[in-house]
Amino acid sequence: MNDDHQNSPDVVAAPAAGPVRIGLLGCGVVGSAVARVLLEQGSALQNRAGAPVELAAVAVRDPQKPRNVELPSGLVTNDARGVVSDPTIDIVVEVMGGMEPAARLIIEAIRNKKHVVTANKELLASSGSELMAAADAAGVDLLFEASVAGGIPVVRPLKESLAGDRVRRVMGILNGTTNFILTRMSENEESFEIALAEADRLGYTEADPSADLEGHDAAAKLAILSSLAYGAHVVTGDVEREGITKVSVDDVRAAHDMGYEIKLVAVAEEVDGMVSARVHPAMLPKTHPLAAVRNEFNAVFVETDHAGELMFYGRGAGGGPTASAIVGDIMEAARSVSGAFQGPAYHHYDEKAAIRAPGEAAVRYYIVLSVLDRPGVLASVAATFADSNVSIASVRQEGHGQAATLTLITHTATEAQHQETFSRLEHLDVVDRIESQMRVLGTDEV
Amino acid sequence: MNDDHQNSPDVVAAPAAGPVRIGLLGCGVVGSAVARVLLEQGSALQNRAGAPVELAAVAVRDPQKPRNVELPSGLVTNDARGVVSDPTIDIVVEVMGGMEPAARLIIEAIRNKKHVVTANKELLASSGSELMAAADAAGVDLLFEASVAGGIPVVRPLKESLAGDRVRRVMGILNGTTNFILTRMSENEESFEIALAEADRLGYTEADPSADLEGHDAAAKLAILSSLAYGAHVVTGDVEREGITKVSVDDVRAAHDMGYEIKLVAVAEEVDGMVSARVHPAMLPKTHPLAAVRNEFNAVFVETDHAGELMFYGRGAGGGPTASAIVGDIMEAARSVSGAFQGPAYHHYDEKAAIRAPGEAAVRYYIVLSVLDRPGVLASVAATFADSNVSIASVRQEGHGQAATLTLITHTATEAQHQETFSRLEHLDVVDRIESQMRVLGTDEV
Repeated sequence: MNDDHQNSPDVVAAPAAGPVRIGLLGCGVVGSAVARVLLEQGSALQNRAGAPVELAAVAVRDPQKPRNVELPSGLVTNDARGVVSDPTIDIVVEVMGGMEPAARLIIEAIRNKKHVVTANKELLASSGSELMAAADAAGVDLLFEASVAGGIPVVRPLKESLAGDRVRRVMGILNGTTNFILTRMSENEESFEIALAEADRLGYTEADPSADLEGHDAAAKLAILSSLAYGAHVVTGDVEREGITKVSVDDVRAAHDMGYEIKLVAVAEEVDGMVSARVHPAMLPKTHPLAAVRNEFNAVFVETDHAGELMFYGRGAGGGPTASAIVGDIMEAARSVSGAFQGPAYHHYDEKAAIRAPGEAAVRYYIVLSVLDRPGVLASVAATFADSNVSIASVRQEGHGQAATLTLITHTATEAQHQETFSRLEHLDVVDRIESQMRVLGTDEV
Repeated sequence: MNDDHQNSPDVVAAPAAGPVRIGLLGCGVVGSAVARVLLEQGSALQNRAGAPVELAAVAVRDPQKPRNVELPSGLVTNDARGVVSDPTIDIVVEVMGGMEPAARLIIEAIRNKKHVVTANKELLASSGSELMAAADAAGVDLLFEASVAGGIPVVRPLKESLAGDRVRRVMGILNGTTNFILTRMSENEESFEIALAEADRLGYTEADPSADLEGHDAAAKLAILSSLAYGAHVVTGDVEREGITKVSVDDVRAAHDMGYEIKLVAVAEEVDGMVSARVHPAMLPKTHPLAAVRNEFNAVFVETDHAGELMFYGRGAGGGPTASAIVGDIMEAARSVSGAFQGPAYHHYDEKAAIRAPGEAAVRYYIVLSVLDRPGVLASVAATFADSNVSIASVRQEGHGQAATLTLITHTATEAQHQETFSRLEHLDVVDRIESQMRVLGTDEV
């Protein structure tokens, strides 16, 4: 089949016939975040989609309702069916949620040969198979990265990167609300009720909290993940389910004593050609990567024959993360529309990057100094930092006599300011030597 | 551009013209793992590639040398140039490593309109820009998932899933050898020298350890990641670099005292349109996801405008993981060759999965029992477990008088065996009640 490539260079060179037009169904938290990215980042997206990408219509129930995004006039409509049958629209993005009318609209869009991007986990976890069969028959994309773990790219790796591997087991922390509650119970020894109230206060809970607390939300996501991992359709009803309401602080303490953390874990595995899928609280050794997933974060831990253990971690919900995943899918569908060859669409960095001078990096430092133990030492050390405009975040003095030690951590300043400080410290009478110094990363400050 | 889709249903339905033929350059640890997957998993791969995938040639320096894989006769050759110019070969997979002759062979393969898959980080980190320009001009794929973090899918997410997002900062643990050493120093308080000797013993070090210890390996990988993240070419020489040889156990202890772990971190960030890239040891708060990356594992932590914080975790080296990433790339290139429409290539699960009966899942349990404190209690409890063939991994007895408590963890048995045990325990005279029970996951055993 050599010299018979469908994606020949001629196709690559051909300019796109016009903009790729997007119809958005729904404009809540996620929808308005998607609209904002499409409206504000047009040129960056064009680069990656192989054609201009244009938000063409936004269908909502009540066009008069105020939105989180300023939409150009004429875009908003309450006629969702008009959007999915509009012959000028190439890609339909469904972010209404729920079963109907979302299901009907997606099927119509597919029949009208539009690519579909959706974040709708309930729908996929119950009717994904039918939707995919319809998309196959119509020869269009049905993309759903945002449906499983918000902004975490896990659907695409499972579909593509692991296409040559076999998944043994998937374990996920797929619900941010319950993980937040369990983290509070673990780290603050709060009761379930108090941790739940805190989740409520921070807006992490739904009006009906049982979808989260009883594991329904995680079960729907696990059904989608299992289907991808094992290439056969798994629906929510196939997933055994137990929530976190019975987990007590005593359990959490006992887990700690034995070196474990308690998490709400969604597990899918294939044994002898049969898939087992379940969501339940479980103890995980503290050394397990999932045990370190804190607060409202999600993660998917995958064990495969060849790649071994993998984990994908990030924000499983929220407008920004979900929109990021949706726009990634829109870019993929847009390349299908524009006929852009994948290669060049990615290879857009023929330019050399401008490299920032090493001294300009913003850093924090941990520094250990051997100092003389006499009055005024701390004052002159502190003055030395101040001379280079480096401010000190914490300091600790230990030992006495000739062998006193100062341990400092600085606030953010440039690498150059720090190096200047170090060189001044080395020449300071009261400093015997700089015992150790190391950059500090991952604090909120930098 | 409606009704003008390049990937029309007709294209989808068209059967592939013949097998997609792969030429492998190099057959060391990684090459033989790739060959094994291609030879053994033919039909599974065909499903995902849209056409049969056939290993057509394996070029090695010494065809007589024994390999880790049994290759069909006639496949092995020492004529690598013959492979890259063979008109029947569609995809060239380069796993020789090093600069030459790899660079020359890849350029020739590209000029001959072959898609190229490579794991060669040195080459990409120095000449990636030229290779990509050549691939663009020829209209072929140049794929390199395996070059950055072995089996961890991070290149594809950066290229595709985050196509609609902006990367603020990338922080990676990109070298398994140094992370293993730092983990030993942290968890066992071993000196650098002793930890290095242990890494040596386990085969984690190279003949010349300085590429790992001084951060050269991580710097090359960071150059590739930075180029992807910021869409402009960054080369190894742009990366500031400091290794781990000066890190002492005292530093590690001081870090612990302050709630930090020390890691060799590769950082790239864009500030005011300038890219800063550096590799150095750094303290990370213990609560940071990268701080929990232990032993020889790698991880890439990405901060973006919309998705927020993401992390990709897994094995950064080794035959299996690297082969997994390479075969994923081969599948992508094979779809370019076969003209398989992406959608249907993924949507192959029209079948309903066979679901295993809930009771059949293999699990471990943590169980807390209130028991009477009198002789023979432990014996009858233990006998109850034994009756259902559930064996006990650990047991602890606390309290006395009427309020004694037994805390047990079981070895792996089925869910049904455990439930049977629980129901027997509830009827046992000496057991007051089952206070708590929870599944245990993530231990090696299950």
